[in-house]
Amino acid sequence: MAQGFNSFTAPYTASGRAALVPAPPWHYAGWLMNVAVSLDTSRSAEVVPAALGRLTGQGCVHFADWQATTDGSELLDPVYSQYRETIVIAEIERPDGKRYNYCPFIWVDQDISLLRGLLQGWPKKLGTTWMTRSLPIEHAAAAPLRAGSRLGATLTVKERRLVEARLTLTGQPGQPLGFLTNAVVGSVGLPDLTRPDQPPKVDWVLPAIQGKVASDWHAAEAELSVLPHPVEELSLLGELKVTGASVGWLGMTVVGASPLAK
Amino acid sequence: MAQGFNSFTAPYTASGRAALVPAPPWHYAGWLMNVAVSLDTSRSAEVVPAALGRLTGQGCVHFADWQATTDGSELLDPVYSQYRETIVIAEIERPDGKRYNYCPFIWVDQDISLLRGLLQGWPKKLGTTWMTRSLPIEHAAAAPLRAGSRLGATLTVKERRLVEARLTLTGQPGQPLGFLTNAVVGSVGLPDLTRPDQPPKVDWVLPAIQGKVASDWHAAEAELSVLPHPVEELSLLGELKVTGASVGWLGMTVVGASPLAK
Amino acid sequence: MAQGFNSFTAPYTASGRAALVPAPPWHYAGWLMNVAVSLDTSRSAEVVPAALGRLTGQGCVHFADWQATTDGSELLDPVYSQYRETIVIAEIERPDGKRYNYCPFIWVDQDISLLRGLLQGWPKKLGTTWMTRSLPIEHAAAAPLRAGSRLGATLTVKERRLVEARLTLTGQPGQPLGFLTNAVVGSVGLPDLTRPDQPPKVDWVLPAIQGKVASDWHAAEAELSVLPHPVEELSLLGELKVTGASVGWLGMTVVGASPLAK
Amino acid sequence: MAQGFNSFTAPYTASGRAALVPAPPWHYAGWLMNVAVSLDTSRSAEVVPAALGRLTGQGCVHFADWQATTDGSELLDPVYSQYRETIVIAEIERPDGKRYNYCPFIWVDQDISLLRGLLQGWPKKLGTTWMTRSLPIEHAAAAPLRAGSRLGATLTVKERRLVEARLTLTGQPGQPLGFLTNAVVGSVGLPDLTRPDQPPKVDWVLPAIQGKVASDWHAAEAELSVLPHPVEELSLLGELKVTGASVGWLGMTVVGASPLAK
Repeated sequence: MAQGFNSFTAPYTASGRAALVPAPPWHYAGWLMNVAVSLDTSRSAEVVPAALGRLTGQGCVHFADWQATTDGSELLDPVYSQYRETIVIAEIERPDGKRYNYCPFIWVDQDISLLRGLLQGWPKKLGTTWMTRSLPIEHAAAAPLRAGSRLGATLTVKERRLVEARLTLTGQPGQPLGFLTNAVVGSVGLPDLTRPDQPPKVDWVLPAIQGKVASDWHAAEAELSVLPHPVEELSLLGELKVTGASVGWLGMTVVGASPLAK
Repeated sequence: MAQGFNSFTAPYTASGRAALVPAPPWHYAGWLMNVAVSLDTSRSAEVVPAALGRLTGQGCVHFADWQATTDGSELLDPVYSQYRETIVIAEIERPDGKRYNYCPFIWVDQDISLLRGLLQGWPKKLGTTWMTRSLPIEHAAAAPLRAGSRLGATLTVKERRLVEARLTLTGQPGQPLGFLTNAVVGSVGLPDLTRPDQPPKVDWVLPAIQGKVASDWHAAEAELSVLPHPVEELSLLGELKVTGASVGWLGMTVVGASPLAK
Repeated sequence: MAQGFNSFTAPYTASGRAALVPAPPWHYAGWLMNVAVSLDTSRSAEVVPAALGRLTGQGCVHFADWQATTDGSELLDPVYSQYRETIVIAEIERPDGKRYNYCPFIWVDQDISLLRGLLQGWPKKLGTTWMTRSLPIEHAAAAPLRAGSRLGATLTVKERRLVEARLTLTGQPGQPLGFLTNAVVGSVGLPDLTRPDQPPKVDWVLPAIQGKVASDWHAAEAELSVLPHPVEELSLLGELKVTGASVGWLGMTVVGASPLAK
Repeated sequence: MAQGFNSFTAPYTASGRAALVPAPPWHYAGWLMNVAVSLDTSRSAEVVPAALGRLTGQGCVHFADWQATTDGSELLDPVYSQYRETIVIAEIERPDGKRYNYCPFIWVDQDISLLRGLLQGWPKKLGTTWMTRSLPIEHAAAAPLRAGSRLGATLTVKERRLVEARLTLTGQPGQPLGFLTNAVVGSVGLPDLTRPDQPPKVDWVLPAIQGKVASDWHAAEAELSVLPHPVEELSLLGELKVTGASVGWLGMTVVGASPLAK
């Protein structure tokens, strides 16, 4: 970028005020519904590059209702801070045997988060996530945090419902799942239009996260359905069989990323 | 409606399944930001029909993030249960001296709520409300319920920002305000297209509410701005001067309405 | 409404400026894709009240990309004038043998049109319609009005794709179809919340239309699919078998309505 | 990207089917409203990197209602092909005296176009554009292509109206303007999160365009307003004074890009 220009991302201006994404730290806090799944590994090589690793068969679908801020100002104009997303996590085993999480698919409903995701190597596209909220009152519409409360979460991408989840709280303590348990390898890179016939060069990175904080996690029984879609490829993971579920609130701060060790 | 048809509202079918609005009871639970205001009464006769009463000068702007359900099923597919709205409440004094609340303006982001509102005499139009949420964790993006947390709420109608509010929690207990304190008179009626030159006949009604439940209310200091708009007429209430503010969660059930006593 | 108040619909104010719907005349002009269908009449009594008539087995699905205005001002701020909708038309035969069109289902993407529809007895709910446009240039992305151009139209309601149509222009002249050929009976009425256990009283009306003007109609071959939906009831019409299709532009003005003769 | 993976952009899979953006060629056709402006050059160094050049004082605001396709399939499912955008063009003079166009700001309403824009060096963010359409019929709502027809175009970014234009067709032939007259230099680059304190490296490129085709251009008189915005920086261009306007349809195909000669 030009000397004296302060935008972290486009558009590029001297002040950087209009940049879609400001520089980190990025503070996030959100309401999460986590559905752990076992998945089919037979098409691993179509989802995870062999040089990166292979699917272990464990994964998680997260539905998240986030607030994000840099310096607090976005919380005063929440169209700049709030977004919802559905995150698909698949555990991988690297050639050296180390295990990480990998995000083959993710959909979000705000541009700021979409680009922030691409910078971190999360393959974000736009999609619409709806999630029942658990409110701290006893009422038929409040889905309070107690045994028997039922909650739904759904994802729609380009006009087709793609994922549906239904959770029933058990009243028991729950576990952190999916990306809450191990770092997620990101795939950073864009193709170069001056060589449009060449594949993009992709770098694998790990996020630099600080200040993670969570509420208690609350266990749930869950059903999860993946529906057919003419473009999306979630079906590469086969049938997603629920192995556990939890809900709760998470906060964390992303300050950058580091290259994945080779 | 035809004999044997069960739709409460259009479209009309035998099963009634596709009806936009099912019959009550309607259970609501939501996160509320309430900003009590004093307002200008000099244009009362342009906002409140003289036969109904006159503005007292007190009012409230509510921002609400609702979940609503009839039989619980909507909570499992939350695009059918969730919506956000901005509610303007102006207190009125009837000719007999009794005081009620009146809703001159309200904007919501879902069709189900829009029509349910018209049936209750709330003059709903589509508009987009954003509200910071208070999450039960200590984090820079969580706006937890303690002194110093800052939250924003905004309303946009047909592409123009119309209302902006900024709240700072004081850490003190708060009060129920606005429609939480007194019933709201609704104006029910639609014009008749077979006589398009005649004004609509409007009936005044009071809601029948059951099972009201609330969390604690949390006091806030607030700033509120109303911006110019080429169509909306919120400016008929003059400058809205903040007299108090609170946040919290409310649940209630609407089972019908009754005519306002003359 | 109160004396001196000029709103045609809520909200009610002296000026009437903020009313969601201004009084007619309502001028409409739009791009239309019309797919004539034959449909199953075996469930007629679940879709059309017997006192109104019965399905004849002919119908049409229209996809429309409208501009509407009262005095021209909405064309200068097109968020107030433009909307898209999907209109299902089923021909009915009245007990006296006269034939009309009836609209059992319709979905639109703007509140102004939704309420204007309810006033006319069209059972509008929100839904999202996408339609390929035919542009007057020869280009791979322009779908120009000539043999072989392919166009799509789709409807999504509450996050599920409900209708998909694919048209191929034949290069031949086409026909006006569906609501372009015969008046549509509307069902006007809302339930009364003071008696929520009683069905709404519905009046049948015919629209008063003036100044109808159309471009040439262009014939097309078409495929039409209706997808499953947990709430919508389009399946009451059975399989929709395409019997013809056309595209073109229509203008017309609605000035009111008249009661359907008994 | 991994050997055997065919995604042009994320998400990365073997088939590449789910990639947000497929590889070029990208065919575009659209309805354009072009408002040529003179602008203030005094803050040139805050908008255009000095090494790239300086503002000449000429520019254009384009409102565009596009259809885009790769192999024609997107035209059958138009949520994948259609989008609207507002494009701000400022002419620049390079240090060597050559003149180009530059796009300091642009807002679009679909993710596919957003990312395709970033690959081309257009600084796209999400924003909502509305444009009156000119329909080929004589009707009060059709804005036909003849003297006296009035059309509006507007841009809203994160809930605030940012640009408003009103055009009146003169009935005279018009001119291609803005990006229709000279190539636009793009700024390609993203920051590297592994070095978040370093500015992004940006490459300047020119688009490779083929098969440009246009309808006649129709002249218009125009008014253009830029409204205040807390984040956007369009005001860096000072007052935008209209110097000409036209409307019409354009088709073109982008096949790649080439580096800007130094």
